[in-house]
Amino acid sequence: MSVAIVGAGPGDPGLITVRGLDLVRDCEVLVYDRLVSLELVAQAVGAARIARESLTQDEVNRVLVHHGTRGRRVVRLKGGDPFIFGRGSEEVEALAAAGVDYEVVPGLSTLTAVPGLAGIPLTARGVASQLTVLTGRSGDGSDLDYERLAGTPGTLVIFMGLARLEAIADGLILAGRSVDEPAAVISQLSMPGAERRIGTLGTIAGVARGLESPAIVVIGDVVARATQLNPVIEQSLKT
Amino acid sequence: MSVAIVGAGPGDPGLITVRGLDLVRDCEVLVYDRLVSLELVAQAVGAARIARESLTQDEVNRVLVHHGTRGRRVVRLKGGDPFIFGRGSEEVEALAAAGVDYEVVPGLSTLTAVPGLAGIPLTARGVASQLTVLTGRSGDGSDLDYERLAGTPGTLVIFMGLARLEAIADGLILAGRSVDEPAAVISQLSMPGAERRIGTLGTIAGVARGLESPAIVVIGDVVARATQLNPVIEQSLKT
Repeated sequence: MSVAIVGAGPGDPGLITVRGLDLVRDCEVLVYDRLVSLELVAQAVGAARIARESLTQDEVNRVLVHHGTRGRRVVRLKGGDPFIFGRGSEEVEALAAAGVDYEVVPGLSTLTAVPGLAGIPLTARGVASQLTVLTGRSGDGSDLDYERLAGTPGTLVIFMGLARLEAIADGLILAGRSVDEPAAVISQLSMPGAERRIGTLGTIAGVARGLESPAIVVIGDVVARATQLNPVIEQSLKT
Repeated sequence: MSVAIVGAGPGDPGLITVRGLDLVRDCEVLVYDRLVSLELVAQAVGAARIARESLTQDEVNRVLVHHGTRGRRVVRLKGGDPFIFGRGSEEVEALAAAGVDYEVVPGLSTLTAVPGLAGIPLTARGVASQLTVLTGRSGDGSDLDYERLAGTPGTLVIFMGLARLEAIADGLILAGRSVDEPAAVISQLSMPGAERRIGTLGTIAGVARGLESPAIVVIGDVVARATQLNPVIEQSLKT
C-alpha cells in the first residue's frame, strides 16, 4: 500500500497499534495531526514530516494524492481513530478517486480508553446496557435534539462537547433529565495533562471550567461507578 | 504493576497496542481468551500460558489474584477491548478487592475497526450523526426495547447479535423501521476468515445465514455508503 491512514490512539504513544508504529517508522512522508504525540512523530526517522495544522483539508488531500501517485510510502497519522468522528473518510475518498492504493489502520478511540484509563465503565450490568455516542453539534451544525436525547436510555458519550457543555447540560435538563444525574468530563485522556472532573448535569459546566480540549463528556449512572483515574500509562516505545 | 488487563484488539495480531505487546512479551503468566490470535499468545515466550476457556470467571479471578499477590508479572489478554462489552470490570474489581496492583491497557474494539476494515462508516455528514451501541440482549437477559430502538436516530451497532438476528430485525420492523433499511453483518473482522454481508432489515437474517461468531451487526443508512472490505491488514509482528 502506498498511503496508510493510521490512527495514533488517544495520546499516549504506547497506545498506537503495532502495525501503525511499523508504518510510521518505515514511511517516507508523514502528515500528522496537532494532537499526535511528538514522540510518535519522532519515530518517522528520515521522513518528510508535515504538520497538518498548516494545511487546509483540500491541501492534505492533495499532499496524500501527490506522494501516493508517485508510489511513496506515506502515512497520514491522525489522533484517536481516523473514523470515529475523525473525518478519515474524506481523505479515503480523495485517495480512491485518484486511484491511489491505500490501507486503513484503525486507532484506539478515546471512547475505548474511557473505562480503562478514566475509570468510568460505559456499560454496566443493571446500570446501563446501551451506549450512545455523538458530537457536541449535529452533523449539519444545528443544535442537538435534546428531547430525543433526554429519552435515550443508557450512557451518553459526547465528543467535542466541552465548549458547549453548559448549553448541552441545560438542554438535557430542560428536556427532562434530572439535575442530579452523574456527569463527567475527561480532558486530555492518556496525555501528561490528563484530568477528570465529576459532577452532575446541574453542576458539570461549572465543575469542568478551565479544562482544555480534547475532552470527552460522559453522562449517566455509570459515572457514579467511577474508580481511580489512570491518566497516563507507562510509555513503552522502544527506539 | 503486577497484573495487566490488556485488550488484544479485534483479531489481527498487528492491531494490539505497542504497550500491550510489550507486556505480553515480558509476562510470567498469560491468561488468554479463546478469540485471541495464537500468534500473540506465542509472543509470551517462557510464560505459563493459561487458556481462559478452561476456567470459570471465578477461577480466572482467583488465578489473577493468586499470581498478582505474589508479585508475578501477569497479563490477562482479552479479545477486542476489555471494557466495551468485555466484562473487564469484574476482573478489575476482584484485583482491587484483593489489594493487587493492576494496570489496564485498552484494546482496539471491533467497533472501531468497522469503518476502516469493514468499509462502513459509522457516522457520516448528512446521513448519521449519532451512534448507538448495544448487545443482542439487554443486560438483564431480557429482550431489547424495540419500540425505543426503532425511534433512535443514526446508526445502530449490535455486538453479539448474530444468533438472534432474525428476532432483532423482526422486532425493529414491527416497531416501525423500514424493511428496506440497510443492514450489514461482519463476521470475524480482521481475522483470516473475515466476511461481510449486506442486506436490508427484511433480508439480513437470511443473507447472514452461515456466518460465524464473533460478528457485529450494523443497521442504518451508513451501510449504503459501504466501500471495499479490508478483511485482514498485513500482519506485522516482528519476533
